[in-house]
This record gives sequence, C-alpha cells and structure tokens, in this order.
Amino acid sequence: MKLAIPSLALAGLVFALIGAADPDAVQKILDEGLRSDGAYRKLAWMCDRIGPRLSGSENLEKAVSWCAAEMKRDGLDDVHTEKVMVPHWIRGEASGRILAPTPHPMAILALGMSDGTKPQGLTAEVVEVRNLDELTALGDRAKGKIVLFNKPIYANGGEDRGYGSAVGLRYSGAVAAAKAGAIGMLIRSLATADLRLPHTGAMAYEAGVPRIPAAAIAPEDAELIHRFLDAGETVKVTFTLSCKTLPDAESANVIGEIRGSDLPTEVVVIGGHLDSWDVGTGAHDDGAGCAISMEALRLIRSLGLKPKRTIRAVLFTNEENGLRGGKAYAEAHAAELGGHVAAIESDSGGARPLGFGVSAGPGGTDIVTKLAEPLARFAADDVQEGGGGADISPMAAAGVPQLGLRQDSTHYFDIHHTMADTLDKVDAHDLAMNATAMAAMAWQLANLDPPLPRYVPPKTADATKPPGIRR
Amino acid sequence: MKLAIPSLALAGLVFALIGAADPDAVQKILDEGLRSDGAYRKLAWMCDRIGPRLSGSENLEKAVSWCAAEMKRDGLDDVHTEKVMVPHWIRGEASGRILAPTPHPMAILALGMSDGTKPQGLTAEVVEVRNLDELTALGDRAKGKIVLFNKPIYANGGEDRGYGSAVGLRYSGAVAAAKAGAIGMLIRSLATADLRLPHTGAMAYEAGVPRIPAAAIAPEDAELIHRFLDAGETVKVTFTLSCKTLPDAESANVIGEIRGSDLPTEVVVIGGHLDSWDVGTGAHDDGAGCAISMEALRLIRSLGLKPKRTIRAVLFTNEENGLRGGKAYAEAHAAELGGHVAAIESDSGGARPLGFGVSAGPGGTDIVTKLAEPLARFAADDVQEGGGGADISPMAAAGVPQLGLRQDSTHYFDIHHTMADTLDKVDAHDLAMNATAMAAMAWQLANLDPPLPRYVPPKTADATKPPGIRR
Repeated sequence: MKLAIPSLALAGLVFALIGAADPDAVQKILDEGLRSDGAYRKLAWMCDRIGPRLSGSENLEKAVSWCAAEMKRDGLDDVHTEKVMVPHWIRGEASGRILAPTPHPMAILALGMSDGTKPQGLTAEVVEVRNLDELTALGDRAKGKIVLFNKPIYANGGEDRGYGSAVGLRYSGAVAAAKAGAIGMLIRSLATADLRLPHTGAMAYEAGVPRIPAAAIAPEDAELIHRFLDAGETVKVTFTLSCKTLPDAESANVIGEIRGSDLPTEVVVIGGHLDSWDVGTGAHDDGAGCAISMEALRLIRSLGLKPKRTIRAVLFTNEENGLRGGKAYAEAHAAELGGHVAAIESDSGGARPLGFGVSAGPGGTDIVTKLAEPLARFAADDVQEGGGGADISPMAAAGVPQLGLRQDSTHYFDIHHTMADTLDKVDAHDLAMNATAMAAMAWQLANLDPPLPRYVPPKTADATKPPGIRR
Repeated sequence: MKLAIPSLALAGLVFALIGAADPDAVQKILDEGLRSDGAYRKLAWMCDRIGPRLSGSENLEKAVSWCAAEMKRDGLDDVHTEKVMVPHWIRGEASGRILAPTPHPMAILALGMSDGTKPQGLTAEVVEVRNLDELTALGDRAKGKIVLFNKPIYANGGEDRGYGSAVGLRYSGAVAAAKAGAIGMLIRSLATADLRLPHTGAMAYEAGVPRIPAAAIAPEDAELIHRFLDAGETVKVTFTLSCKTLPDAESANVIGEIRGSDLPTEVVVIGGHLDSWDVGTGAHDDGAGCAISMEALRLIRSLGLKPKRTIRAVLFTNEENGLRGGKAYAEAHAAELGGHVAAIESDSGGARPLGFGVSAGPGGTDIVTKLAEPLARFAADDVQEGGGGADISPMAAAGVPQLGLRQDSTHYFDIHHTMADTLDKVDAHDLAMNATAMAAMAWQLANLDPPLPRYVPPKTADATKPPGIRR
C-alpha cells in the first residue's frame, strides 16, 4: 500500500546530519554509485562462479568465504564470519503424474523441509481447495486424499491476491491438510507467470501432526486438475519425492563494516541473505541483496567518506528454510542492539528500487521520507509506512528501527524460488541504483541526530514481526 | 512484412460471389461464430482428454479417431481418414550439465529426430557461434567439440531477428557442425521468453555426414555459457539423450467436408496439423488450427448454408517431424488439385486473428483483401502478400492458391514446442474469432466467381515452398 504523507507534516521535522564533515557526501555517493557496475560484478560471481547456495551445501560455504574475502578486498573493517548451525535439507529427485481421468506429467518440486515419499511414491485422489476455510468445510472428504491448494496469485496483487495471500498455505498447508486426514499436499506454485515452472519454498511440520509429503506443481498442472474436477471427474495423481533432512550443518553470517568515527558502537546494519534455494542461482533472491549491501559499503569506503556511526553489512545465512542467520545475529549481538540505530534489509530482488518501507517509532517514516529526497534523481524516493525484512526482524523486539529497500516486484514472482532465478534476469544498472540508494540511506542514518525513533513492538504473541514483512 | 496495398488497386477488381442464395451468409457466420465456444471445446478435448500427439504415438491415433467421430457428430459429409506412414521418433530422457569452469545443470531437450548419445553421455568443450558463417570461420576449431548455436530471437522480430532467422540453424545445424568435425550440437532454444524452458523442434541428418546428437538448451544456459566464454574460460559440458527412431508407424489425415451444391469437385481446403510435439499438449501448435478448421465447418453446417463449391477440412498428420501428411494429401489427390481453388492453413497458434497471408496469382491478394472486409468487425482484415502453411505447401506445385490464417504471434514463441504449450494459454474468444474468420473466408472463396488466380510456382529448386511460409 502506498501511503499519502501530507507534505506539511514534514515541515515540523527537526533533525540534522551530525558533524556532517562532507555536506556533499550524498551527491558523491549518487554520482559514483550510479556509474558503478560493482554490485553486478559481485552478483555475477556469486551466481555464475559459485551457484545456488542452499543451507548445508558446499556452495553456501564457498559463498561465505568468497564474500568475506571480497569485503576484505574492498577495505572494510573487522571483516569476519559468525558461526551459525543451519538445517540441512536436500532435495533429491521429484516426479509426478496425473493418472486419471487422462495421464499427464506434472512439473513438480518438493517444498523445502518436506519429508520424501516412499520410493514407490504416493498415489491418491485429489481434493482441491483455495484456502484453509474450504479445507475445513471439506470435513471428512480430505481423508486419505491428496489436498491441492489451488490459489492463483497476481503480480502486484497486494495482501489479497499477491504472494502474501498464499505463502501461508505453502508454509502451513501440509499441517492443515494432515489434520484433515490427508496423506499428501500439493500446492499451485506461487507464480505470476505460466511457463510450466514449479516454484519451491519453505514449509514446516508441527509436532504431533503426521508429516505428509508436500510439493509445488506448475500453475498449468493445477489448472488442468481444476478443469477435470470442474467437469465432475475423479482426479488421481501420483508423486515421488526423495528429499530428506540431515543433521544440522555449520554455516556462518558474514560481517564487515565501516567503523564510525564518533560513535563506533552505534550501528546501522544493512544486509540481505546469502543462502538461496538450490534451484536457479538465487540471483534475485537474494544474491541481489547481498551484492547491494556489499557494494554500498565499498562505495562509501572508496569515496573516503567517514560516517559518524558504524555502518555494518551483515550477509545472513539460512533465511529460506530456517531464519537461523537472522536469529543468531540478534542473539549474539543482543547486548549491542540498544545501540543499533537502524537495520535495512534488501530481500525483494534486484529490479529497480522504488524507495523504502519503514517500521520505526512515531515520526520515523516522515524522517526517512525526507532523507530519501535526493533519491528522487532516479525515482527511488517512495517511502512507505511498514516494512523491513525477515532477517532483521529478530532485532525488532529490541526496538531497532527496521527498513526494507523496496524494489519493483512486477516480475519478481515470475521466477522467485525457481530454476529461472538466474543472473540474466538482473539488470546491472538496476542493481547500481539499488546499491546507491542503500548507501545513501545508510550514510544518512549513520549521521542522523537524533537517530530514528525506536521501533515499538506491538503487544502481541509475535512481537518479532514488524508490519509489512514478506515471509 | 506488412505490405501497403493502394486502395485504388481494389477499385478495378471484378469478381462476385456466384449464385449467392443467401447474401447475408457472411453476417450470419460472424454473428453465430463470435458467440460460439465450439472451437475451444474441441481444443480442450484434444489437449486435456487426449494429450500430446507425437507421430507414432497412441495419442495421435486417438486424436485421429476422435476428430473423425467429432466431424461426424457435426454432420459433415464424407468423413474419412487417409492412411499415412509417419516417422516414429521417441524422446526418452535428456539431461545435461556444464562441468567447467563451474558446475551448473542445464535445462535440455533433444531436438526431434536426433540420435541419442551413448548411455554415458557426450562430454566435450564448447565452441559458440551465432550463425553458419561463424561456424565456417572456426575452421579446425570445432573439431572434437560441441558446437553451441547461440542466436537469440525476438517476438515479432521478422526475418532477421524472429523465429525464421534461427529455425534453419535448428534444422540443419547438426549437419553443418558435423561437417566441421564437431561431435555434438547444442542450440539456444528458439524462445522469446526466458523461464529456463527448453524448446524442441525438428532437425535432420544428411546422408554421408556423421549423425551427431543435437539438443536445445534454455536461453539462460546459453547465456551462462556465453558469459563464461566471454570471460576467456574453457567451457566443458556433458549431455545424455536416450532418444531414438523406430520403424515408421501408421497414422492418417482426417478429412471431412461440406459438399458443394453446384461445383462439388471444386474444393477449398482448410486445415491445420493434428500431430504435436510430445512435450506440452500442442494447444497452440497446432491443436488450435485443427479446432479452428473443424469448427469453421460445423458453423457453416449448423447455419444450413450451402456453398457452391466443396469446403473440406483436412487435419494433417506429422507436420512437425516429417510433413508426411501434407505430402500424402497432395499425392493422393494429385488428380484433383486442378480443381482445388484454394487452401487455407492455420498453424501460427490460437491467439487473436489478424488476417490472412496470400500466395496466389496476380491480383489474388487484392481479392482476398476485399473478401476480408467484413472481418474488420474484429480487426481480422489485415491481408498481406505471401503466406500459406507447411502442410498445404505440397499443393503449391499444382498451382493451388495458398492462404495462411495469421494470428498475433507476440507470445507464440514463448511456449512454442515446449511443455508450456497447454490449453490454459488459449483464450476461448480468440479461438472463436479465428474459427469465424476461417469460416467466412472459406465460404466466400467457395462461392467466388471467378475463383482466385492460380498460384504460379517460382522456377527454383524448391518450387513446393511458396513465399512467407514459416517452416
């Protein structure tokens, strides 16, 4: 949602950039950032020369090492890694077919963290629902069946019809289906393009509820099943998954910073997540966020700019199937979070930046709106109330103001969590604009006096989750 | 290319619809055709209830039987099948990987009619070319290598940058590569969308030239190989194909007609091809053309209209990997082709109709332009010089005027020859407009006096191929 912020409200703001030794710093960041291909070159290495970076994989640890080395090459301070134990799920093979009323193959991918099927696969009749209410309404009729969650999503569809409207079905649908007596769960891929491409993503089991296999099928296959059911046919499918979960593996968050000149213990965190799904190479999700964050710091350092507070890049491990990196950072740095004046995450791909979403205390969004004004040069000044990122959400309880760098996501869910999330989908200049926006905002927040008003967690069970976060 | 036809030229045309018992026939066809979902329902059965229809498959013969039965249900005259022996190629499995400089999987499909590899696959260094000239320029450097033809194509790219600019590489590239000493051939999929989807299609070997395995890879994989080579790396790949060619199988063209009331031995043929690739369900290519042709006749029959000449639907078998159906029809009916006054093919998908392409004698295009005027009601009146279709091209040598029903092909090559060519990509109203345009044009050509000027084959080696035909 785009909020209309009365411009008069900004007139009353009182803040300044402290000790701004270089009043032209933001312009310098923009001038240099917009002509650099540094972010793209970093991303290219991560995607092409390393590859997909699933938690537990050798590739993810190669990325940890390479990013740390790259940060050192960029001259950052205190570059180091912080150990995190992560889930080790492996995909194995997946195949599936419609058996009746007419045989058709299905394009299928296991959902991340699903158990596999027996080697001979899982075969049953399909019942189709669009949401959990429809599942409940089935009563006994899901018993012994495979439940298909068949909810289409639409680009820029918002809370009701976008990704956010269906991700809960993917994450929790297997548990709900198992509670209804189902023996397997399929979901129509959370996809905004139809080229017979299945989209994976995390799911979870619940203690005490049968662990039924869960997989995503291409939108085309879900549509075909719908047409058969709509015609009154009984639909029978079979699918085989050989995925499994091994003992936790060692991984790490990668950290580097530019030490603050005046207030080094006060910190602006910027980051994205280093892990990706094993299909594709995680170019948009979220190699882009890591490249943007690394490049933002390289840019500031290369210009010889010295922020008053510390600006720290954190490349979080294991966002996709565990959020262990985000949780580990918040735990390991719990004592310092009072001095964390802001955290900015980029985890909506590398298409052109639109602006920021903000979850801070009263007035915070207006301040960020003001700070974003120079980004109007490339139309990245649209600041909205609400936002952040999954990896920085564990810092919310400590009151750290959360920002999300917002990108044009029109085509993000065409390729999100698929084998088509590859470097060719990323435009180098789009990425440069993102790194520039990130650098300019981080720089200003690091020099802002007073800092952004602290985030006030809502008094709910899920206080760690600020508003506007895409899971 | 769109030709500008001076409107003054039309003023001199002298023709009429002979014995037009019902002067409102075209309006009736339009009124009824545009509100019918008959074409879509026929296509839905072919795609969903039968499935892909590769030559030699049980499914193709199911489609032969079903279409003949459907034509009988529609009350057509002389419904029958005409036996055709067709190639029997089976795909088997395909897999491929980039081995160096960094391992990556490739999305790969064998080209139709390719030999398989040895079971352990084919492994070699890759050399990349964009065209045959670049291959020639390599000299010895293709020897023992895998040649990658890496030519991107663009939607509505015309002769230079569209499908037609690369289809020759797919068809003949393996022979050219083998002549240069290569041991395998890969081609960037002839694709106008990038969602990691390989596009198959026909290739051919040449007697005396080594039969090297040939496959298409996704555009993303071709781009990645290009980036590696561009960086000076040696790229090594491996791929395994288990495709093979069995002895010819029996298939058939399916034929039904509305007998002409005055000149029953003079015929307007309308048609598409019944076979499809084995991936996807051949919804656009060319289930659509068959559904359009069958529906056009059903429409005319249901209105009780009696054409002066015969209008005959021919659903050709084996266009994709042999053109045996088109050749067999021209041979079996050789003695009657002098009375074939026109043939109209629909083989560019089922998106909304634009008009017709025409390969007839002098003045023919102007006449068709005039006949297409009523189709302006739904903007299907754009008639261009040149056109036809592969299946009707064997009738060209006998002088039969050839028309191609032209569709908006902006998205056709997104899914052409892929597993994403499925019913969900087809819009029922688009298909109704196509069937209506086909019926209205066939009806008028069947009543036209004098008939269209005969096509004059050019004095070249390939006289069977009228201009403007997409292979």
